[in-house]
Formats: sequence, C-alpha cells, structure tokens
Amino acid sequence: MINVGIVGASGYTGVELARLLCNCPDVKLTVATSRQYKGKKLAEVYPNLAGLVDIVCEDLKTDELVGRADLFFTAVPHQTAMAIVPDLLKAGKKVVDLSADFRLHDAEVYEKWYQKHTAQEFLAEAVYGLPELHREKIADTQLVANPGCYPTSVILGLAPLLQNGAIENESIIVDSKSGTSGAGRAAQTGTLFCEVTEGFKAYKVAAHRHTPEMEQEISKLCQKQVVISFTPHLLPMSRGILSTIYAELSKPFSDSEVHGLYKDFYGDEHFVRLCEPGSFPATQFVRGSNYCDIGFKVDDRTGRIVILSAIDNLVKGAAGQAVQNMNIMCNLPETSGLLTVPLFP
Amino acid sequence: MINVGIVGASGYTGVELARLLCNCPDVKLTVATSRQYKGKKLAEVYPNLAGLVDIVCEDLKTDELVGRADLFFTAVPHQTAMAIVPDLLKAGKKVVDLSADFRLHDAEVYEKWYQKHTAQEFLAEAVYGLPELHREKIADTQLVANPGCYPTSVILGLAPLLQNGAIENESIIVDSKSGTSGAGRAAQTGTLFCEVTEGFKAYKVAAHRHTPEMEQEISKLCQKQVVISFTPHLLPMSRGILSTIYAELSKPFSDSEVHGLYKDFYGDEHFVRLCEPGSFPATQFVRGSNYCDIGFKVDDRTGRIVILSAIDNLVKGAAGQAVQNMNIMCNLPETSGLLTVPLFP
Amino acid sequence: MINVGIVGASGYTGVELARLLCNCPDVKLTVATSRQYKGKKLAEVYPNLAGLVDIVCEDLKTDELVGRADLFFTAVPHQTAMAIVPDLLKAGKKVVDLSADFRLHDAEVYEKWYQKHTAQEFLAEAVYGLPELHREKIADTQLVANPGCYPTSVILGLAPLLQNGAIENESIIVDSKSGTSGAGRAAQTGTLFCEVTEGFKAYKVAAHRHTPEMEQEISKLCQKQVVISFTPHLLPMSRGILSTIYAELSKPFSDSEVHGLYKDFYGDEHFVRLCEPGSFPATQFVRGSNYCDIGFKVDDRTGRIVILSAIDNLVKGAAGQAVQNMNIMCNLPETSGLLTVPLFP
Amino acid sequence: MINVGIVGASGYTGVELARLLCNCPDVKLTVATSRQYKGKKLAEVYPNLAGLVDIVCEDLKTDELVGRADLFFTAVPHQTAMAIVPDLLKAGKKVVDLSADFRLHDAEVYEKWYQKHTAQEFLAEAVYGLPELHREKIADTQLVANPGCYPTSVILGLAPLLQNGAIENESIIVDSKSGTSGAGRAAQTGTLFCEVTEGFKAYKVAAHRHTPEMEQEISKLCQKQVVISFTPHLLPMSRGILSTIYAELSKPFSDSEVHGLYKDFYGDEHFVRLCEPGSFPATQFVRGSNYCDIGFKVDDRTGRIVILSAIDNLVKGAAGQAVQNMNIMCNLPETSGLLTVPLFP
Repeated sequence: MINVGIVGASGYTGVELARLLCNCPDVKLTVATSRQYKGKKLAEVYPNLAGLVDIVCEDLKTDELVGRADLFFTAVPHQTAMAIVPDLLKAGKKVVDLSADFRLHDAEVYEKWYQKHTAQEFLAEAVYGLPELHREKIADTQLVANPGCYPTSVILGLAPLLQNGAIENESIIVDSKSGTSGAGRAAQTGTLFCEVTEGFKAYKVAAHRHTPEMEQEISKLCQKQVVISFTPHLLPMSRGILSTIYAELSKPFSDSEVHGLYKDFYGDEHFVRLCEPGSFPATQFVRGSNYCDIGFKVDDRTGRIVILSAIDNLVKGAAGQAVQNMNIMCNLPETSGLLTVPLFP
Repeated sequence: MINVGIVGASGYTGVELARLLCNCPDVKLTVATSRQYKGKKLAEVYPNLAGLVDIVCEDLKTDELVGRADLFFTAVPHQTAMAIVPDLLKAGKKVVDLSADFRLHDAEVYEKWYQKHTAQEFLAEAVYGLPELHREKIADTQLVANPGCYPTSVILGLAPLLQNGAIENESIIVDSKSGTSGAGRAAQTGTLFCEVTEGFKAYKVAAHRHTPEMEQEISKLCQKQVVISFTPHLLPMSRGILSTIYAELSKPFSDSEVHGLYKDFYGDEHFVRLCEPGSFPATQFVRGSNYCDIGFKVDDRTGRIVILSAIDNLVKGAAGQAVQNMNIMCNLPETSGLLTVPLFP
Repeated sequence: MINVGIVGASGYTGVELARLLCNCPDVKLTVATSRQYKGKKLAEVYPNLAGLVDIVCEDLKTDELVGRADLFFTAVPHQTAMAIVPDLLKAGKKVVDLSADFRLHDAEVYEKWYQKHTAQEFLAEAVYGLPELHREKIADTQLVANPGCYPTSVILGLAPLLQNGAIENESIIVDSKSGTSGAGRAAQTGTLFCEVTEGFKAYKVAAHRHTPEMEQEISKLCQKQVVISFTPHLLPMSRGILSTIYAELSKPFSDSEVHGLYKDFYGDEHFVRLCEPGSFPATQFVRGSNYCDIGFKVDDRTGRIVILSAIDNLVKGAAGQAVQNMNIMCNLPETSGLLTVPLFP
Repeated sequence: MINVGIVGASGYTGVELARLLCNCPDVKLTVATSRQYKGKKLAEVYPNLAGLVDIVCEDLKTDELVGRADLFFTAVPHQTAMAIVPDLLKAGKKVVDLSADFRLHDAEVYEKWYQKHTAQEFLAEAVYGLPELHREKIADTQLVANPGCYPTSVILGLAPLLQNGAIENESIIVDSKSGTSGAGRAAQTGTLFCEVTEGFKAYKVAAHRHTPEMEQEISKLCQKQVVISFTPHLLPMSRGILSTIYAELSKPFSDSEVHGLYKDFYGDEHFVRLCEPGSFPATQFVRGSNYCDIGFKVDDRTGRIVILSAIDNLVKGAAGQAVQNMNIMCNLPETSGLLTVPLFP
C-alpha cells in the first residue's frame, strides 16, 4: 500500500485527485491540506465525497507533512509549489507537481512568462509528465511536472505529425476552448454563473502562459525551436477542452495516410482514442475520464490539416494524468484507478 | 459469470446500463438490441463507450433473444415491454423491466393512467424493485419492476416518516424537478437545447403517470389508501432529480428527532446518504452515482416538514437501481458495479 | 424630461435599470453610483451597454447626490438602503427602493427576519410597489418599496383566488425556483459557474426573508393573518423565477371558473398574461420582459389547485417593476420603456 | 406604412423577425406562413409573443402570397427559396432572402457546394446584404441575399485589414463557434439538450457551405481569388457566434495602428462596435442585439494578427440584418426597430 498526500486538496484539481484515488486499490490517501478548510472534512466541502472519503483537511507546514506519505501531489498555484516541492524531494518523497513551476526546462523562459524561479536546481531532475511521450523518464524520476491542460491536448494532437515531419513547423496555430473548471474554485466575478452561461469569449489572446510549455515540447519533437499561435477561450460548461489545431502539410497526404501515422505512433496507448477518419471528438464523450480523443481532417483546398483533440481538463488535463504518473513512478499498473467510463449524457 | 442482455440499448437508459455493466466483474453483456441502430456498434452511437464496449446492436425477436443471456434488462417504452417480458419469463429468464408495465399491482389503476394491460397474469409475480423497501422479495422473484425516477426519489424521502406515522397521510404534496435526460433521446422539439436551456417550466401538472406508482407505495407504507399532489418540472440540465416534499406533521417534532427516524430506518443502507440537519442535498453531488441524498427541515411556524431528496435520474432513478436489483436477484454483492464516486464539478 | 439616478448601479439590478432606462423617452439617467467602479464608465463594467450608456460611475455621499436627480432608484443591500433613503426623501426626492427595508409595514416583523430598523418613521409612508394591487397609492407617494422577486411572482399568482375566497388561507405552500442572477454579482463560491451548472438545490428552506413579505400581502388580501410554507431553489440558469403554488380549494371549481376569476381580476393589466387552461407558463417566454405569465390546474383528485407563475426576476422581479413604479409616480405612461418583446430562444 | 410578410415564420429566424418587427413603427406584419402550424397563432407556437403578435400562420402558395405584402422575408431552407423568390420578384415585390440561394454570384460555385440552381437569372440582380459593405447597392435592388451568420462575423472582422492590404491573403484561418440556435428548430437528435449541454465539438470540418460565401466577399475585398480554412463548432448555448480569425500580417503593425484601420473603415457605423486594444468581445454582450463587436491582437512573436468578432447569430447573423436591409431598401432609418440593448446577464 502506498501512502499519498494531496497538498491543496480543496481546489477542483485537489478534489478530483481525491475522487480518482477512491478507485486505486493500492493507494491510500493519508493526508490532505487546505488552509481555507482546515479542520473540516473534505466531504463537507465537497458533498459528492460523503460516505467515500473520510479525510479531514489540515493546514500543515512542509516539515509536518513529510512523514505522512510516500508520494505527494502538489495541487497549489505556481510560485507556491516551488516553495514546497524542494523540501519534499529532500525528504526523499516522490512528487507529482500539478503547478507550472517545474514544467519548463529553461529558467529564463519560465521567468519571462511567470516570475523569478527560486528552485532552479530541480529543473534538471523534473520530468515533463506526459506518459505517452516520456514514460521511461517518468518511471525513473522523483519529480514529475504534470503538464498543463491545454498543452496535454495540443501536444498529444500534434506529436505523430511532428515526429514524422508531416507539417510545416512554423505554421502551427492552436485555437483551444476550455470549460470553466479550468479557472479554479476561487471566488471571482469573471467565473460567476451569470457571467459565463450563454456566453463565449477568448482570453489572454497570444499571451497565455501555456504557450512556452507547448513550444518546448513541440520544439523537442521537431528538433527545432518553433513558436506557435495560441488562443484560449472560455466555454459555458464545466469540464472539457477541445483544441482545434491548424498546420500546413509538408506534402500532400490522404486522410488514411495521416490516420496511419497516428495509429503507428499511439499503438496500444490506453488513454488515446483515435476517431475514424470523417468523425471528430467531442468533449462530452471524454467527461470524467482520462481519455484524449483525437480526430483530424486533411483539407486539400488549402494544403492544411485540422486536428481536433478533446480531453477532460480535470482528468487527463490534471488529476487523471497525475494519477497516471503516480502509477508509473510507483510501478503500479498504469491504468489503475483510471478505468472509469466517460459519463454521457 | 452471468450473461445479461439489454433490450432497447440505444436510449439513454440503455446506454447507462452499458456504462455501469463495464464495472461489474461478474457480469458479461452478451446482447444489446436496437431497431434504429441495428448493425452498428453501440460505441459508434455513443462514442463515450469507444474502447470499452464492443457490442453490436441487433434487431431481434424475443425468441431469438432468449438463448443469448440469463437476465434481461428491458429498457423499452411501456406497452412494448408487456409484449416482450412474458416470453422472457416463460423461457426461464430473469427480467428487470425498466418500463412502467409491471409497477402497478392493480391492473385497473394501470389501465386508468396508461392503456389496456395485456399481461396482467404477471402482475402478481412482479416485485416493485426498490431494494431499500423490498429487498427480500426482489431476491426471490423472476421479474422486477424497476421503479420510476420520480417515485424513487419520493418514496425514499417519505418512507421513514410514513412508517412511523409522523405525517398526516392526506397532506402530501410533491414538487419534483428533473433533468432533461428523463425525457429520453427521441428527437422532439420540446427537448431541443434551445427550448430547454435558460428556461424552466412545469408539465403534466396533476396528471403525470408516476402519481399512481407513488400512491401505491405510500399507501402500503401507511396502510391506508392515499392520494397525493404531484407536479413535475423540467430543469435546464441533463441529469438529476430533486423532489421537494411537503407534509403536515402528525405532532411536533424537532429536527433531530426526525433525523433519528431516518437513521433508524436506513441504518447501513449503502445508497442512501442522510444530510446533517441544516444542510440539504443537491443533484450535482449525486451525479453519475447510485446515491439518494436526503435532507429535511421541520417548520414550526406552519407545522409542516419539508423533505428534499436528490438522485441521478439515470442511475438510482433507472439503470443503477436496475443493476442493484440484478445484483440482488443474482446473489451478487449489492453494490457491485455501483461504487463510482459522484462526478463534481 | 425627468432626471433619475441609480444608487448602486453596478449590480445586476442596477445595470438592468440602466438597460431599461435606455428605452424611456421621457427620462434621463443623470447619475449612477458605484463604490467599486468609481471613475469607470458603466459600459466598461458591462460592455453590453457600449455605445448606449455613457454614464461614469461615481462614489457619492447622499448630500452630493440629491441635487443630481428628481427620482432615485436605490439598488443597494438592505440596511444600506435605510441609511440613504431618509435623506433623499427629506430633500424632496422621489425614491423607488429596491431593497427590503421599506417593504414590511411592521417594524417588529422586519426586525425578526432582518435586523434593527433605523428608519421606522418612513414605514407608514412607504407603499408596497406592486402596481397591479396598489396602483393608486403608488401614484400618491414619495417612497415606493419595490417588491421582492419571489413575492412578486407569488402574490400575483394568488391575488385573484384570495380576494374571491376561493382557497383555504392556511393551506398555501409555495415552491419557488430562481435563476442565479437573483444571487447578485458578488464574487462567491456558491454562485460560480461550476457550482451551479448541471445542478439544482433548495436553500434557506422554511427560512427565507421573502416569507414575511408574502405573508403581509396575502394576509391583506384575505383579511386574515396567515402563515405560508415557502421553499426557494437555485436554478442552473441566469434569469427567471417560476413559483409553483399549492392550495386547497374552498369549494369545487372547474378550470374555466378559475380562469374567469383571473380574467376578472386582471382585466386589461398590461403586464399579466394568463395562459389558456391546459397550458402553463415557462420562464423562457418572459425573459427580458416585464411580464408575469400565470397558469393553473384544478386537481379534482386532491381538491387542491396548483398555480404556476413566471417572471424575469431582474425585470418584473426588480428593475422592470421599479421602472413601472417610476412611471406611475411621475405620471408617465405605465408601460413606457417596458414594451420589449421577451427574448426567445 | 409598409406591409411585410414572413415566409417560413415558425423557425427560429422567422420568429426572431416577428420579434424585431414589433419594434418597427413604420412596418406592419401582414402575413406569416408556416406549413407545420397552419391555422395556429404564431404566439401559440412561441408564447413569448403572446399579447404582442396576433398573426395566424397560413399555408399559402406563392400566388396567394403576393397580394398580401410589399416586401417579403423568405426564411426557408435553400432550394425552397429559389422556388418562391422568382415569383415574388416578378410580382414586383421586394425580397430579403435569408437562405443561401442568392448569396453566391457564381452559379457554378453554388452548384459545387449545394445542388443545382434553378433560378440563375436572378443571381445578377441579387445584392449580398451586408450593409456595411454594400449599402448603396442594397438601396437600389429588389432582391437582397441576406448573409450567412458565420460569414457576417468573419467578413466584418476582416474587411478593414483586407482593404488596406494589411494581411497575407492566403494565410486566413477562421475558427468559428456558434450557439445551437444556428441549427434551427427541426427535431434532431444532434441538437437535443442532453447531446449539446456541457459539451463542445467541431462539425463539417473544412467542408461547411459558408466557406465559398466568405471566400467570395474576401476575394472581392482583396481583389484576388483566395481560399480560406474554416472550422465551425457547436457551443452549449443558444445564441451567439464568436469567430477567431488568424492571418499573417503583411508588415509589422502596432495594436494602435490596426485599431486606426478599423476606426477609419467603420467610422460611424451604428452596428459595429470596436473593442479598445487589450479588450475582446464576448457573445453575451451582443445577445439579442444587431451589434457586431470586434477586437484583435497583434502577436509580434509570430507575425500574425488574431481577430475576434462576436454577433448574435439570430440578429446580426440573420433576422436583424434582414430588418436592416429592409430599412435600407424601403428608405427607412437604417436602425429602425434595431435599437434594443443587448440583454446581459
């Protein structure tokens, strides 16, 4: 039995971890921290967990935490993470960090998009936790930087094409749409029900912090430094990301040739489902699950390909992928706890 | 391994059965019928099932069906069910019928609210499949009439009070609100997105067919023939029923005395969760699960009690309860396949 | 030209007033206060007003306000209103107060449900601003207490029956459901999109502050002190209230007899639309308008009547009724600025 | 007083025309056709119109129609329109056709994307009814082809850049998202509430029929034949389109230079509202109105510009623009009937 802790358990990502861990037979949730709900049962904060999760939220310093578990999920904002993670690592703990703090290998890039980085010495050790690309390194590391939600959908959608040189690297345009749970549970006017329902808008146009994360992984895949266009949008729904990705094909391809590239690349990957040519993914068909559904269309008129990639932002885009990384790091079956069927309707 | 079949697999209830059966280790889905999608994979009709459910929809006559499974879920409209169920029973199969055809013990009442009943000889055998009330009879029968969604929420909400004579039986008023999935997947103008979203209305006021079903079970519990007021409403959401139930208390009660009645009545029932006095259930906290969450408030000013009861209409209100009944009928652990954590947010 | 001011312009009620006043040819918005958005254009806070409303939010003391308009809408929380309204009245201004502070004639009742009342001397003068009941008094007063959203829907739904002695006064049960805009624009976890969407719950069961307001007007109509049961619920939508009201009929009535009572009572009232017997109102058909749509059903089985009453909580339930009151107080056509067609779909 | 008729009054576009015409003082709705609801009041089909629109739906042949009005809105599917419009024109009537049948000047292009064109002789006369581009021609024609919803948002978003040669014409990528009302009121599984809510997907990827319409107008503006990439998506909401448009800048521009191009181009256009640099449009702020709100962002990193354009698909994207065209054709004030304030929240 592996003991795990959640640092920052009362946000949407934290509670989603608690939900998924209920399904993990080899794992026990032994500690959950929340400053705001200190002393309260997590199931009082999130009554969906009533009768299923007994844990009480605590407000602990890192040195009080370390003895309580073997592996920690740090589900706290960037900058907060880098203040906690080093001590957990030094205490010999495994860490899956869900913040942005250890995703970028290059501290300069981090500092350009975020702020000063105060734990740069751990960047080399951190593995970008996208199992479909970096499974072996994840198995060997003490620190996994769990990918951002948008990058997960985008990198999985592009990887087979990039690796095969099928697209012009400088031509990538990413138009992503996310459910509102991605904005977290902080009380803000902008994410009130009445502000979001029956409405749609872009935000942080050409300025979102997930951009360098995508560029890092895309550049690795095509072995060349590239920049991309990225526009995130806010959907009037709770869960789900759909990324629509445009790129120029490097030469003419048929839909079935491209389908072949994807099949070869993903083979038996459990959490990537390819749509048959002519059909496209929809966020409602991955809801609550760790799947990434991918479809595409070659457009002969323009010489471009359009790729559609759908995930549940709280699962494959956050907590589910974190559990998948935990499984790999702890030598458990990779799909353990992650076999729930998507909930539709 | 028990082989089961779903008759009418392509409606929302049918596909929800398919989803839940994925989680049942002792059960195998061996046949699924759908006239409309004959020859198509169920996972093509409902892509959430891709990679998880392999079954192909068939259009079969009852005599072709019987050899294919040990137990059948009949998820077809009333009147259609009574044409199929008798032959399944005669062939020695167990049946969980999700239609209304075998819920009412009195054929006259049935014919008043529905239409002519052509299989009255099976009414005596049919057990009303609310396990919390009729578990033992369910274990012994070949035919379970799976309760309606509204009645499930209402009867579970009222049973402890009725059995203890705590309320005036003639004073019961039920105001229920259901998500749109209760209306099924048939293409109808009234359930189009644009007709339902950002709107709310009552329908079939004082005329809904679930009324006699509630009256039958309520009358049994209070050992007296009673009529109730029942108003269903359509919510701009997909899943969930909340019933708000009003009744006059037979004598003054405190909130904690009433809470005691509920605790005594439900004891260790796995799928009934009682809210602490002062807190109330919400449909979003039972989503995707087989729970019925119940809360209440004694109103000293009026001498009435208000009971709130929340279920997922497709799970405890249909497919989940059907699986629970299957488990009891087949001597499997009652919670098998039904332990998924409610999905929130 | 009448100059009007909005005190508290940046809440949903305030901005709805600004929207409606755009349609009033005889009225000019000359001042709008907002502490939070001081110095900002109201149209920057609410971009729907861009190009239509030029006013800049100010943070003014009452003595700075009084010279700026002839009539004031006070769209501030209760307790805040009673600190402002007296000075406006003393300066000779007309006031439509949208808070609860002047709705209850009896200060004791107010203090039981709210808190201490510090402007009791104005209670006698305040007129409860439901024009369909109190039009003449509204025309003659300096201070109108604009009704609450729930009470508006409920009192209009019950008035014809109460005045005709058609129902048992002690039997009234009100089950109301409101869109989330009723909770206002303050940043709160409970009204975040993800907490509300695809969910439904009751709140303040048997304890909501609109209860005494309904009881006051109901008691006046039936000339007897009555208590009622009232349960509000939160709908996963933005605008609209539907109240489902139950009462025992004092004697048998047919649907058409009851329809006659409503027709006689409401006659040519512009903002009350009666549904034909057999059809019922829906909130989506009053959206954005000042209408109250009313339907009902006599239930012979139980001897009860069920009344359904639908309004847009921000219009007939708040800002629209306030404009209607302003029109009456200022001797303008009562429908001026209020003739917009409900927006559907 | 101008008498107008709506052919196809019971679809969402038809009833939106009826709503807007209520606000037109110089226009009278004298006839409304609907095969499905023949003999029924339009206000029974759409109860939002109760008390406001008295007209009864009729099922009329074209020769019975012509005497009933001076101008007709044909709100029927493509192919149906081309069977009706010629006879209306021959009878001397003005026509605003809301179908696709007369939008494309080149019959070959039409036949490639739609089907055979049987009224090609009227293509030369038809004016593409985007007033901001073709106001003078609209004033002079008998037949206006009312633009598609997607093209309206896209062409208005691109026009200032295209006319000024500011972007590379071959680089245009359009990613559009539409509310579900765009799919019309036909009962279809795909637009049921449960299929759409809490979900998001692309459809007709690189194959939508609005593509050639955009290409026609874009090519005119840049005086060169261009092809574009276009992906439409279905939003879980009722009204609104947001188009996110990507293009390579022909040379470096600052945000304020681009803003200048838009201001010069649109000048005093009433129905185009420009967002200040740094802010972006949202569909909820144009709801129910005829506005097109436009924002953009120059991305120095990639050399691209991202343009955001928001409309209400039923108003500026259909019925509102049709009324605007009617006003121009009939020499009425262009904004007549179209000054309603967007409804938010």
